Amino acid sequence: MRSDLLSRVLSLLPDQSETPELTRFYTLMRDYPQRGGKGIRSELLLASARAHGLREGGPGWEGALWLAASLELFQNWVLIHDDIEDDSEERRGRPALHRICGLPVALNVGDALHAYMWAAVGRAGVPGAFEEFLQMIHRTAEGQHLDLAWVEGREWNLREADYLKMVQLKTAHYTVIVPLRLGALAAGAEPRETFTPAGLALGTAFQIRDDVLNLAGDPHKYGKEIGGDLLEGKRTLIVLHWLARAPEEQRVVFLDQMRRDRADKDPAVTAQIHRWLLEGGSVAYAQDYAQRQAQEGLKLLEQSLATAPDPQAAAELVGGVRELATRDG
Amino acid sequence: MRSDLLSRVLSLLPDQSETPELTRFYTLMRDYPQRGGKGIRSELLLASARAHGLREGGPGWEGALWLAASLELFQNWVLIHDDIEDDSEERRGRPALHRICGLPVALNVGDALHAYMWAAVGRAGVPGAFEEFLQMIHRTAEGQHLDLAWVEGREWNLREADYLKMVQLKTAHYTVIVPLRLGALAAGAEPRETFTPAGLALGTAFQIRDDVLNLAGDPHKYGKEIGGDLLEGKRTLIVLHWLARAPEEQRVVFLDQMRRDRADKDPAVTAQIHRWLLEGGSVAYAQDYAQRQAQEGLKLLEQSLATAPDPQAAAELVGGVRELATRDG
Repeated sequence: MRSDLLSRVLSLLPDQSETPELTRFYTLMRDYPQRGGKGIRSELLLASARAHGLREGGPGWEGALWLAASLELFQNWVLIHDDIEDDSEERRGRPALHRICGLPVALNVGDALHAYMWAAVGRAGVPGAFEEFLQMIHRTAEGQHLDLAWVEGREWNLREADYLKMVQLKTAHYTVIVPLRLGALAAGAEPRETFTPAGLALGTAFQIRDDVLNLAGDPHKYGKEIGGDLLEGKRTLIVLHWLARAPEEQRVVFLDQMRRDRADKDPAVTAQIHRWLLEGGSVAYAQDYAQRQAQEGLKLLEQSLATAPDPQAAAELVGGVRELATRDG
Repeated sequence: MRSDLLSRVLSLLPDQSETPELTRFYTLMRDYPQRGGKGIRSELLLASARAHGLREGGPGWEGALWLAASLELFQNWVLIHDDIEDDSEERRGRPALHRICGLPVALNVGDALHAYMWAAVGRAGVPGAFEEFLQMIHRTAEGQHLDLAWVEGREWNLREADYLKMVQLKTAHYTVIVPLRLGALAAGAEPRETFTPAGLALGTAFQIRDDVLNLAGDPHKYGKEIGGDLLEGKRTLIVLHWLARAPEEQRVVFLDQMRRDRADKDPAVTAQIHRWLLEGGSVAYAQDYAQRQAQEGLKLLEQSLATAPDPQAAAELVGGVRELATRDG
């Protein structure tokens, strides 16, 4: 995220204690924010605020910045808990927090950051923002539940519609819909209803693109382990598309590996599965699907913003979202 | 908790979804609240509101009830995460949530409940309550960090003062200080400064008593496994007192067991350690310590409430706290 936003996030978090172990606690809370996330969602929020007529540095801008900081805090506590839930190895090119300080300590660090997120929402003092954050967490947790429950139940008998439902809940709200809405609220405007269908399409495109990058991305740009989703047994559009078409003997090999815990998976076999997914046309299918969703979402967003108070800022917002939906890292 | 309060908590949580797996998610969110916690903290809050002049059913009482529901929601999400962090077996006489649905799903259920806690705080609409909940979570998470970091770091080189600092942060704020303060705020009164020293003493008494019950309590009344703290390697006043006095050969046996993960501990040896703790006078020492802290806290609380708007309700509040500080289950 931008350095002024990072400073704002860090200014809210405690720093030093006379109890050395608490100073360590604060250092752990500051770790993920300082790893340099891209700040996609906070930029989207600020672009939306500008499109709704808010001037950088003018009245109400402070409120928008605190909401942007709140979104970044949301992202960071969620990532700490996500990484535990998925037992991920890496985050932003370094070991996941629970691999540094152990699961119990990391879980509690995430809870502490969650509370500081609410402190930032309170600081913003923007009417309606509290309710937006509630709805955002409710939906994200529901999507996360579907994702985790399928892994836990070794559930592979899923349709593409199940995946799309999960992604809409897990990604679209906090990545697109709520940032757009919060930008409007920060500018004192009523959020447009059409942000929801636009955001559902764009959020879906965004998540599918992330799934594609996880299998086929550039490790240096991506920041997480390539193929990690396979080791974590994640359901993706790519895998569901491939499963519905794969030869029976490949399906058997796949399902056998996916029944196993991460540590019991055979690296050579998961590498083979990885190749099957890349070669079978399912990655290309998912890329096309994401592309169509992105087009659809961008069209809806442009229509939504046709009457925006600041047309130039609205065009920049759409441009930023286009970049986001077609990123390669 | 009281059935009307439980109904209020459940009324805030979703119930049914057209997606069966989300209905299961909602059922998991409702599980801990429905296990029948004692509702100690919410009763304390309501008693404090009455002592500050709020009439049951009168103006402002709804706000107090929503804050009481918020405290119960706090307690429940924290217990879900605590049970993961300590890898506890049981909670309120049944398996801990993560032993029913797996750690990742349970962690996410706790996060969802955390957000619904804030929804309840918002519903209360009591000025100042938002900030109280922030401070409560900050302090509780700091205390929890000390507790968890000592376990993670196999740290036994601790003084009684370290334990007392941890307990003040981990237990006193959310069990006593904040409920007393929230009751005042619900009644439109400024919380008394002396609630803090009173609550620190009473919260310490409360936690030490819990530590004693964990080793020497009645399994039917206690609701968690007796001796669980030993298996989880918890630092308690009892253990620190005993360690400072135990014969070298017993210390060596103790520290050897405590270096091991729960699964690698020898049940016969931990049973032997359990007997040493009971026989060595350290349980009695801790009981005396808790007793003195309770007396001190009650004296301070009585002084604080000498000018309370409703003297009879204030006397009932002190009586309730006395019961709490001398409970046996």
